[in-house]
Amino acid sequence: MKDLLKQSERIDDLQINNLKIIQDPEGFCFGIDAVLLANFVTLKKNARVIDLGTGTGIIPILLAGKSKTSHITALEIQKEVADMASRSVQLNQLEDRIQILPVDLKKIGEILPVNSFDVVTSNPPYMHPKGLLNPEDKKSISRHEIKCSLEEVIAVASKLLKHLGKFFMVHRPQRLADIMYYCRQYKLEPKQLQFIHPTYDKKPNLLLLECRKAAKAELKIMDPLYVYDKEGNYTEAIHEIYGRKVLEKDGEILE
Amino acid sequence: MKDLLKQSERIDDLQINNLKIIQDPEGFCFGIDAVLLANFVTLKKNARVIDLGTGTGIIPILLAGKSKTSHITALEIQKEVADMASRSVQLNQLEDRIQILPVDLKKIGEILPVNSFDVVTSNPPYMHPKGLLNPEDKKSISRHEIKCSLEEVIAVASKLLKHLGKFFMVHRPQRLADIMYYCRQYKLEPKQLQFIHPTYDKKPNLLLLECRKAAKAELKIMDPLYVYDKEGNYTEAIHEIYGRKVLEKDGEILE
Repeated sequence: MKDLLKQSERIDDLQINNLKIIQDPEGFCFGIDAVLLANFVTLKKNARVIDLGTGTGIIPILLAGKSKTSHITALEIQKEVADMASRSVQLNQLEDRIQILPVDLKKIGEILPVNSFDVVTSNPPYMHPKGLLNPEDKKSISRHEIKCSLEEVIAVASKLLKHLGKFFMVHRPQRLADIMYYCRQYKLEPKQLQFIHPTYDKKPNLLLLECRKAAKAELKIMDPLYVYDKEGNYTEAIHEIYGRKVLEKDGEILE
Repeated sequence: MKDLLKQSERIDDLQINNLKIIQDPEGFCFGIDAVLLANFVTLKKNARVIDLGTGTGIIPILLAGKSKTSHITALEIQKEVADMASRSVQLNQLEDRIQILPVDLKKIGEILPVNSFDVVTSNPPYMHPKGLLNPEDKKSISRHEIKCSLEEVIAVASKLLKHLGKFFMVHRPQRLADIMYYCRQYKLEPKQLQFIHPTYDKKPNLLLLECRKAAKAELKIMDPLYVYDKEGNYTEAIHEIYGRKVLEKDGEILE
């Protein structure tokens, strides 16, 4: 197994279906948002799925764990990160179900056919690039819209989806206006929306959104999800999502 | 005082600043949403304010109670309802501060100058017209988009506001995609958003939104507001809004 690891990388046990993932503690490690998104996604048998900006490959690996589909594609613009994700796929012996492509999602039209996926997922960079950022820094690329904007992610998702195909995204509530505006503009009609709050008395700091391409306007708001209870422990709902074995790799995601 | 009342109408004490309001129990009575909206609005001294679709006149009357401005205009398309609102203004001796106009907001450009208000408020009909509705029924007009659509309310608000003027609206979270899309389209940039939940474990069923005309994109999500606690009593936050004297006229607004 150690042959799959490069310097400074480590193998983390996802504690879900015996899945493992390679991460570089010096780079961007996945957070609770990726786990919540994977849990939120609904997949039909043999759905053709693509994950935009996959990072460590956490979303496709979790989706492979919770479904039977063997048509999962994932894009990652950073070659080294895509390579690490590919090695995680190997580590889990999922090579026949997950394909990691080290490509820029903005160029996907040249590589993959449009209107060909049932499901698009994305845990994109949340933040507008502000101030001095190193445009080649791996963490910055994962967190800020340096290599792609929210509008580009939504436009590409729409292009790749079949008629009535589903788009699942996790993002920040502060971007709601942008999200709703671009989704509507690119014909990804918001259908289900769930807000995630750190505790019940705090404002939501994450949202899960399901859109449907070319569907009619009818948004369902879901009951909120709270991460911590009053005593600072994970809530029952979070325990259920993690299969009662909670892991936390990137605590700073939830303020 | 009774001269101000028509058959089937009654006077309700708002229990806020000694204000009263005339309502017709057979028509649409104001609900907690109007009180929450009035509480949410921030007004500078002598702000020029207009309320779109004022109904009983509850919003302008509450705004007059909480501020010193004497430039409050309110539109109501239903002549009888506008007349009732005018009589409520008289009842509270607010004729020099509030002017009720029995006009269609879609025709406001013919009557009032554009770019002339500091603040626009609205508690518009929440629902798409569906199925068989009596287009002249007062309750239906207050609840469904029969006489004006959400897009028209937002377009008129934008037209009436000065540069950087503020738009405050209460609406249903199910309409978030429409709200965000039209606000952005008509240059009313969403700046603050608060969700109202009946209880802490239920999804939000109302939202309060503050937009600013031609402002830059930066949305602040506020801490949620819960109406009832676990015992089914009003929460502390609601008691504070009602000045500790809670009234409830239209319980069905909060499911």
